[in-house]
Amino acid sequence: MTDKNPSNNLDEILKANSAYAQDFDSGQLASPPARHFAILTCMDARMDPAKIAGLSEGDAHVIRNAGGRASDDAIRSLIISHKFLGTTEWFVIQHTGCGMATVTDAEIVQLLEEDLETAVHNGERWVNPQREGSENTKPGSDLGHSIHWHTIADLQQSVLDDVKIIQNHPLVPSHILVYGFIYDVKTGQLKRVSE
Amino acid sequence: MTDKNPSNNLDEILKANSAYAQDFDSGQLASPPARHFAILTCMDARMDPAKIAGLSEGDAHVIRNAGGRASDDAIRSLIISHKFLGTTEWFVIQHTGCGMATVTDAEIVQLLEEDLETAVHNGERWVNPQREGSENTKPGSDLGHSIHWHTIADLQQSVLDDVKIIQNHPLVPSHILVYGFIYDVKTGQLKRVSE
Repeated sequence: MTDKNPSNNLDEILKANSAYAQDFDSGQLASPPARHFAILTCMDARMDPAKIAGLSEGDAHVIRNAGGRASDDAIRSLIISHKFLGTTEWFVIQHTGCGMATVTDAEIVQLLEEDLETAVHNGERWVNPQREGSENTKPGSDLGHSIHWHTIADLQQSVLDDVKIIQNHPLVPSHILVYGFIYDVKTGQLKRVSE
Repeated sequence: MTDKNPSNNLDEILKANSAYAQDFDSGQLASPPARHFAILTCMDARMDPAKIAGLSEGDAHVIRNAGGRASDDAIRSLIISHKFLGTTEWFVIQHTGCGMATVTDAEIVQLLEEDLETAVHNGERWVNPQREGSENTKPGSDLGHSIHWHTIADLQQSVLDDVKIIQNHPLVPSHILVYGFIYDVKTGQLKRVSE
């Protein structure tokens, strides 16, 4: 790893975990969520679902991906959540200021085709970094074409669409309650979205 | 919704959120994770990644699905995390006592084919509930055949496999550091897994 310039993150995570395990008292919790619900939300670093929705360990499943979208894999997780662990209410929470709303699927494909390194936003759009050839970097790849990136054109519509996709999925029983929300990263507030 | 027998979860979430928003002071955080890393872990209710790994709001992306597996969608999220939001280290955390290790893909397909309602574990294996025909319930569906369920046969191997799948993905630059861990739900401890 010496050639990879590691940060202190590994050490810091292990140190934080050691402190957590020292005072750990959740070892008897059961696997099925005590409050019988699941949250699907974004991976965004600013969001802590446990704080935002008032969860304690053992309460609820939390599924997260880029955008908080009803991807096939999120739906896989929700089906597992109901079929094996008994959840019956699902909360879809997408949010303001989401990176997935700053780019289109076509732009992602093109940016990746040029270069895999982190893009920069020039105020108008994302562009690839201008740089000399560097070590450890693959060239771009056209494999982005084969991926559904789940970018967001309209936030409210995205929540409504995803709630509907989940509700209408043939492996989801019709009695499951699916709620849609927008979380505001500037105020910390959840706002319900419904038609 | 009157016919759907809702719980108090919606009200309780909104009440908890209202209290959270009252004291909210993270409105100025930037979208890119301050500590430049992402965690991929399970949706399990007993796990609070922020506590387990010592995260504050703004620090890191958290991606979660059933099993904490390197599904196509988890990889989509990781690529977005690096390409647009600059993370360069990724921590894959799977865990002891995972429901995904109690069942096989073939068993899930068969259980869903019979019935979409929550199964029970009889000590030996999962079985569907025995019950009279009930309202609001679709019959089973054979659509489970088309889904990769990502069940776990061997936990350590699953972590190693998923780290490798991510590292070898053609849209993941080779300089990204990918670490594997097992989280022990009985002790709260993270244990590094490496070959």
